Amino acid sequence: MNKPSIPKGTRDFSPVEMAKRNYIFNTIRQVYALYGFRQIETPAMENLSTLMGKYGEEGDKLLFKILNSGDFMRSVSEQDLAGGGTNRLAAQLCEKGLRYDLTVPFARYVVQHRDELQMPFKRYQIQPVWRADRPQKGRYREFYQCDADIVGSDSLLNEVELMQIVDTVFSHFGIRVSIRINNRKILTGMANHIGEPDKIVEITTAIDKLDKIGIDNVKAELAQAGISAEGIAKLQPLFEISGNNDSQLDAIARMLANDETGSKGVEEVRFVLDALKPLGLKNEVALDLTLARGLNYYTGCIFEVKALDVQIGSITGGGRYDNLTGIFGLPGLSGVGISFGADRIYDVLNQLNLYPQDAMQGAQVLFINFGAAEAAHCLRLATQLRQAGIRTELYPDSAKMKKQMSYANTLGVPFVALVGESEMQADLVTLKNMVSGEQQQLDIEGVIRAING
Amino acid sequence: MNKPSIPKGTRDFSPVEMAKRNYIFNTIRQVYALYGFRQIETPAMENLSTLMGKYGEEGDKLLFKILNSGDFMRSVSEQDLAGGGTNRLAAQLCEKGLRYDLTVPFARYVVQHRDELQMPFKRYQIQPVWRADRPQKGRYREFYQCDADIVGSDSLLNEVELMQIVDTVFSHFGIRVSIRINNRKILTGMANHIGEPDKIVEITTAIDKLDKIGIDNVKAELAQAGISAEGIAKLQPLFEISGNNDSQLDAIARMLANDETGSKGVEEVRFVLDALKPLGLKNEVALDLTLARGLNYYTGCIFEVKALDVQIGSITGGGRYDNLTGIFGLPGLSGVGISFGADRIYDVLNQLNLYPQDAMQGAQVLFINFGAAEAAHCLRLATQLRQAGIRTELYPDSAKMKKQMSYANTLGVPFVALVGESEMQADLVTLKNMVSGEQQQLDIEGVIRAING
Repeated sequence: MNKPSIPKGTRDFSPVEMAKRNYIFNTIRQVYALYGFRQIETPAMENLSTLMGKYGEEGDKLLFKILNSGDFMRSVSEQDLAGGGTNRLAAQLCEKGLRYDLTVPFARYVVQHRDELQMPFKRYQIQPVWRADRPQKGRYREFYQCDADIVGSDSLLNEVELMQIVDTVFSHFGIRVSIRINNRKILTGMANHIGEPDKIVEITTAIDKLDKIGIDNVKAELAQAGISAEGIAKLQPLFEISGNNDSQLDAIARMLANDETGSKGVEEVRFVLDALKPLGLKNEVALDLTLARGLNYYTGCIFEVKALDVQIGSITGGGRYDNLTGIFGLPGLSGVGISFGADRIYDVLNQLNLYPQDAMQGAQVLFINFGAAEAAHCLRLATQLRQAGIRTELYPDSAKMKKQMSYANTLGVPFVALVGESEMQADLVTLKNMVSGEQQQLDIEGVIRAING
Repeated sequence: MNKPSIPKGTRDFSPVEMAKRNYIFNTIRQVYALYGFRQIETPAMENLSTLMGKYGEEGDKLLFKILNSGDFMRSVSEQDLAGGGTNRLAAQLCEKGLRYDLTVPFARYVVQHRDELQMPFKRYQIQPVWRADRPQKGRYREFYQCDADIVGSDSLLNEVELMQIVDTVFSHFGIRVSIRINNRKILTGMANHIGEPDKIVEITTAIDKLDKIGIDNVKAELAQAGISAEGIAKLQPLFEISGNNDSQLDAIARMLANDETGSKGVEEVRFVLDALKPLGLKNEVALDLTLARGLNYYTGCIFEVKALDVQIGSITGGGRYDNLTGIFGLPGLSGVGISFGADRIYDVLNQLNLYPQDAMQGAQVLFINFGAAEAAHCLRLATQLRQAGIRTELYPDSAKMKKQMSYANTLGVPFVALVGESEMQADLVTLKNMVSGEQQQLDIEGVIRAING
């Protein structure tokens, strides 16, 4: 019989991997809670009517669709069948799909439950999402997202707090990061300024390469994208922008002085950066005028986080949107959100070996099993240790000593408790420190003290 | 536009519901960890070849199947199409399905990863499962299971520890329970004893009604199930069994003295009950000779837990199996497991109103927003409180006082911090206790002390 396997692009998480993942999720969860965000969960399955059309044509294809129960062929027409495996046929075979992200389900949740929600509504959500992407290194078909959003408030204080959350989370992890901030309105302003309102993506993509390919090549790329010489000339101040956030903001403000949207964007970023100044962030928050972020629902501040000591893409991102719930019939609800990339953070922590030792630990002590009478005695001692909050195992079989010690070693159990006949009679425990090799005879109170360090 | 909705049988969990559910999961998780169990997770999607045929014919129908990506019609034959929505056709449209429980994925995991696993392997797993059951009150199409299993050890000490785990978990919850224990070998022994080895279910079902319908009716039911008068007569000792666990065990031991399997079962239960005696359990563990449990893979001790103060079905159950991994080509691996029914425990805790207050709380303090200057000042104070571990919100907009207070009230925030111009100048905070209504002016250290109580 072949070894069983799991679908490609999915993963089993072993105990050690789970301990690491729990450390990540718990850290993010605690920081979210510290800022008053409250958790929700939505079902893995959504109606396809909720999901379809929200992620573009490509996204529709990447949705996992669930075959209807019962006679799933009942409403399929001959004509649709003849067309092969199309979206149209899939829609007749399937009413439900697996969620593709947490944003659309959240928008659906807000609209569906709007009468119960107290605005502003601050929620976080940590759940898996599924995408039928081609699996490749670092890209999975099932992965977790860790999102927080505030909806129902257009105050920029929300942006400020999200930046603090990013700073706090990565400080906890010990990962040095650069937080990049920009504003969609600035990008719109730049495109307006040169009379090319539809070329935002081309402009930011080209400018993003400034450091790598130099001004002349950037200009060539802009020309190739169909931007006039006059337009490129108008972008000149952008190529000369330098210095700290404030001087960059001053320069872009001058450039966009006659564009209302652009000026608004500059003002928003300035507010956020100014508010952050006295708050003592441990990581740099830098204006990055080339930051665009792909998702087209962003309308205000956008941000992205990069690790400084590891070569990896963005590990966190987010931004302000003005009409997320409009697609479900509730327009005008502004919100701002953030998403931590748990899988990439996992990789960074692994590469930098930053997991704290105590997050990784299973049982703290293993009782060796010397036989029926000793085991019965140890059951009582183990119960006492657990009542003291110590994670305790009793080896279930009276196997060879070597096998039991090897079990403790493999699992990294730091203490082993040996209770043979003489210890039983004296009501003592021989406690072995598995790191130092040191052994001492202790009563149960002494054992508790020794393990709790 | 209609309000959006979610698939029937699925649920959104609001912040209050999530707080309750987290309390349940965290309690179970902590107790599992206290006994040295380590967490794993498996993918939501498994290959259908892993799932099909493991839950009986009915179970196969209740699996949610996932439509293949791309041209899902490519390998479907005309002939299969003509047959309508059959399992055969589904198998060609779908290679993957959502997991139906945690047991089969766990067995698959153990076989797939056997070379990495240290035996005995103690794992716990808390994840959702999906079943295309007809939704009804208390039955959902997506629900969580909370399982723990030890595989690779046939020691009865594992059963003993699982009973301790049950007792500890429900003691934490404050739910009084009765833990019922039996052994499949005893049931086999009884059926052998009367020469009806295939009638285990009929015998236990009938005997289970003894209290309700009386001996004569039970006998009538047994006769109707095709059991001979002689066989029924041989069961007579069972009808007279009474008293505590020990005297019941003695009686059944005498009855099954000539049946090897039955005697083994009695011995196993006796070991577990004897070992538990000195361990000070808070809940009763009672022998229940009518307990059968439906799942046919159990081979040894079986157990089930009922709440004493609420009318509801079994809220926890489990048992010993000898060959769970055999279906995946790894025979002879004995294990024992337990599963807490989170949704029913949720209902019981709700009915008895047993959720601890501090498990339910979001933010501990809300700063009222009096305007831009005050808000900037409060951002700094809020940062200090969060550094002290206090869950803190600053209302993002300078809305009307009444609206902000109502926000605090609705969310149950216990303290409100008021910092107007005079407080700013004096570097003080007016802290209002939302329960008592009491107000006091404090410096930030005083606020921290007041909130931490």
